[in-house]
Amino acid sequence: MEQTTLQINGMTCGHCKAAVDGALRNLQGVQNVQVDVAKGVAEVTYNNSEVTTKNMKEAVEEQGYDVR
Amino acid sequence: MEQTTLQINGMTCGHCKAAVDGALRNLQGVQNVQVDVAKGVAEVTYNNSEVTTKNMKEAVEEQGYDVR
Repeated sequence: MEQTTLQINGMTCGHCKAAVDGALRNLQGVQNVQVDVAKGVAEVTYNNSEVTTKNMKEAVEEQGYDVR
Repeated sequence: MEQTTLQINGMTCGHCKAAVDGALRNLQGVQNVQVDVAKGVAEVTYNNSEVTTKNMKEAVEEQGYDVR
């Protein structure tokens, strides 16, 4: 298992948190997600044989947020 | 049909808009809703024989927002 921290712009509320959390957890290979709206980050634990950080970035961007 | 403008605190994003819009439209007697997140208002067209502004206030508060 690997860990990465995504820097996410635009999350403002609990709905945003749920949208980002759900999009990431929906990816095959993502084991755990911790979203912090105030800090604008998501900490993801994942299996790098199944999912890439590019996959994660795309999933979050599909929800309408920018990933740095 | 009557019209009222609810002053709503705490809406920050499109999810908030959808939550407030949906909660109001779900009330029997509400005919139309226009939510403006930036202004913090919802304009509601309704039938006052079926629904009260108190009902609306409660529906919005259940979504986690304050109505002034």
